[in-house]
Amino acid sequence: MATQFSIKDDDVDIVIGALQSDLTSFMNAWKPIFSRFHLIIVKDPELKEDLKIPDGFDVKIYTKADMDKTAGASLTSQLFSGYSCRYFGYLVSSKKYVISIDDDCIPAKDDKGFQVDAVAQHLFNLAVPATPLFFNTLYDPFCKGADFVRGYPFSMREGVPCALSCGLWLNLADLDAPTQALKPEQRNTRYVDAVLTVPAKALMPLSGINIGFNRELLGPALFPGLKLTKEGKLRWETMEDVFSGMCVKVVCDHLKFGVKTGLPYVWREERGDAVQSLKKDWEGMKLMEDAVPFFESIKLPAEAVKAEDCLLEIAKLVKERFAAEKNSVFIQAADAMTEWVNLWKKVVPASN
Amino acid sequence: MATQFSIKDDDVDIVIGALQSDLTSFMNAWKPIFSRFHLIIVKDPELKEDLKIPDGFDVKIYTKADMDKTAGASLTSQLFSGYSCRYFGYLVSSKKYVISIDDDCIPAKDDKGFQVDAVAQHLFNLAVPATPLFFNTLYDPFCKGADFVRGYPFSMREGVPCALSCGLWLNLADLDAPTQALKPEQRNTRYVDAVLTVPAKALMPLSGINIGFNRELLGPALFPGLKLTKEGKLRWETMEDVFSGMCVKVVCDHLKFGVKTGLPYVWREERGDAVQSLKKDWEGMKLMEDAVPFFESIKLPAEAVKAEDCLLEIAKLVKERFAAEKNSVFIQAADAMTEWVNLWKKVVPASN
Repeated sequence: MATQFSIKDDDVDIVIGALQSDLTSFMNAWKPIFSRFHLIIVKDPELKEDLKIPDGFDVKIYTKADMDKTAGASLTSQLFSGYSCRYFGYLVSSKKYVISIDDDCIPAKDDKGFQVDAVAQHLFNLAVPATPLFFNTLYDPFCKGADFVRGYPFSMREGVPCALSCGLWLNLADLDAPTQALKPEQRNTRYVDAVLTVPAKALMPLSGINIGFNRELLGPALFPGLKLTKEGKLRWETMEDVFSGMCVKVVCDHLKFGVKTGLPYVWREERGDAVQSLKKDWEGMKLMEDAVPFFESIKLPAEAVKAEDCLLEIAKLVKERFAAEKNSVFIQAADAMTEWVNLWKKVVPASN
Repeated sequence: MATQFSIKDDDVDIVIGALQSDLTSFMNAWKPIFSRFHLIIVKDPELKEDLKIPDGFDVKIYTKADMDKTAGASLTSQLFSGYSCRYFGYLVSSKKYVISIDDDCIPAKDDKGFQVDAVAQHLFNLAVPATPLFFNTLYDPFCKGADFVRGYPFSMREGVPCALSCGLWLNLADLDAPTQALKPEQRNTRYVDAVLTVPAKALMPLSGINIGFNRELLGPALFPGLKLTKEGKLRWETMEDVFSGMCVKVVCDHLKFGVKTGLPYVWREERGDAVQSLKKDWEGMKLMEDAVPFFESIKLPAEAVKAEDCLLEIAKLVKERFAAEKNSVFIQAADAMTEWVNLWKKVVPASN
C-alpha cells in the first residue's frame, strides 16, 4: 500500500534535552528538518553554563527555574536530571505529537546516500495504523510498495492506532556499557530499510534516543523516575527509558495501541568512555532480570481505560512485587511514577 | 556479534516440489548454490509429463509410484497433490536440515547487486540461536556487526534453538489473490537486510515458498492437509502452508524453539492470473478469521514434549473447536494431520 498521511506542523513539538551547553553544531545539522516545527529545549538542571543555540528556530527554552516553579525543587531533582530533563518537555508540550532526539545525534543517510528526515518518518509511523495482533512478514504493510501477505486475516488489516515510534541508530548503537566496553571498535553500519509493529505481548528494550509518540494517546506513559544508584550522564549508564518502555508496551497492549520500531535512523556520535562506566558496577544488568518477568506477568484491570490509570496501576503492582526490597530502584521508580502522574494531571488540563 | 557456524553439507537435503515438468532453467539458475547438496525432487502426482532435469546434480526423484507405495493411493491424493508434494520429500529425507524453495523462484540479488546464497543464509539462521522471549531492536543479535541492545536481559542472551527459517520474496510478493488482482502491477522491490525472531506468542502467516527447517526438532510439524475446496496450482490458491505455519509456531512456542523471518530473499517469477483465481470465491479469506483466534487460544499440555505429540494434540483441539462444521476444511485438515503423523511415525524410525 502507499498510504497518504497529513499531520499539521502545528500538531508537533520537537523536544530536546540539552545535556551539553553548546548546541550549535547539533542544531545546524538538523536545521533543514527542525526549522518548520516548534522546538522545546529543556536544559539539564545540573548543567551550569548558558545554552548556545543558533538563530533560525522557533524555540522555547525551559530551565531549572521553570521546573522548580511547576514541580517544586525536590521533585525536579528527583525527576528531571540528566537525560530525564526531556520529560519536562513532554509535560509542558500542548501538542498531539512529540518527537525527541538525543543531542549527540545528527541526521543519518539512508542506504542510497540520501539524508533521512527522521521527523517525517516518525510522523508517518504515527499517522498510519500499527498491526500488533498478527505479524506481517513484509513488515509495515502501509509503506510504499508493501502490503499484507497471503494469510493475513482481513478483519485485522485495519490495524490499531500507533502510539509510539522507536527509531534506530547508525554508527554508535545503543549498547550497554559491558557490551560497548568489550567491543570498543564495534559500529552499526547496517541500514535496515523497514518499520515493523512489535507484536502484542512481546516486550522490547525501548531507547529514548530517537522516538516519536502520540501524546494524546500515551499521556504520561513515558516517564522519568527509574534512577540507577550510580547513574551518570552517558546513555549506557541510564535505564529510565528501558523501564518506562516496558510500562508503555504493557499500556499499549492493554489499550489496543501499537508500538513500531525500525526507521528512522539517526547517526550517533561518540560520547564517553564505556570502560570508565563499567567501574560503576553496572546495576542495569541485574535490574532487567527481575523487571522482565514482572512486566510479562502484568494484567491490567478493564477499568484502566486511560494511560494515566494504567500507570498508577502499574506503580501499585511494582510496589507489591518489590515490597521486600524497601530502598530498591523499583520502589523509588514506583514512587516517581505516582508523583509524575499526579504532576501530569495538575499541569495537563485534558488529562482529568 | 559475528557468530561462526558449521553445518556439514551431508546434513542438508534440498527438497523441491516439481509442479512443472521442465526444471532446466530453474535448476541451472540455482546450480552454483544447489550443486554441493543432495537434492530431493518430488513430482506433483497429478503432473503427467516426464521431468526434465539437467545434469550436474546429486538428485533423487520421487513420483506418484513412490508415494503410493509408502502411503497408499488414497492418502497420496489426500496429502501430496500440487504444492503439497514437497511434504513427501520432508518425510523421506533422513537429514537434520531441510531447505525447500518453489520451482518458480530463482536466486535474488542483494541491495549491493550480489547474488544471494539462500541456502547458506537459511543454514546460518538455523545454526545460530533464536531470541523469541524478548525483542531485540537491532534484529538478529548474532549476525555480523549486530548485538543485543541496552536493556536486553543477560539471562536471555543465549537464546533458544532455531527450528524454522522463513525467507522472503522479491519481485512477485506472496500476496493473496484479491490483493494481487487489485494491484496487478505491484512488485516487491524493497530489500530489507535483516533477520528477526518472531516473538513468542505472536502468530505470522508462514509461506512455504522459501524455507529451511531443523527436521530433528520439528519432525512432522510442517504438514500438508488443509485443502481449499477449489484449490488450484497457484500459490495464492493455497493455504496449506499458512495453516501448518500457525501449528508450527504454536509448537515452537510450547517446545521453546524459535522461528526466524527475513533473509534470504528469492526472486519470484510470474505465474498465473490472479483475476481468474478470484472467480473461485476465495475461501482462504474467511478461513483465517476463524483460524487465528483458535490458534491464539491453544495451550498445549506439558506432556507434549515432541513435535508429533503437539500435532496430535492440536488435531484433537481442531476437531473439538470445529465439531459443528462436519465437512469443513478444518475437520479435513485435522484428519490429515493425524494421518500424516501416523505415516511419519511409520516411515521415520527416530520418531517413535
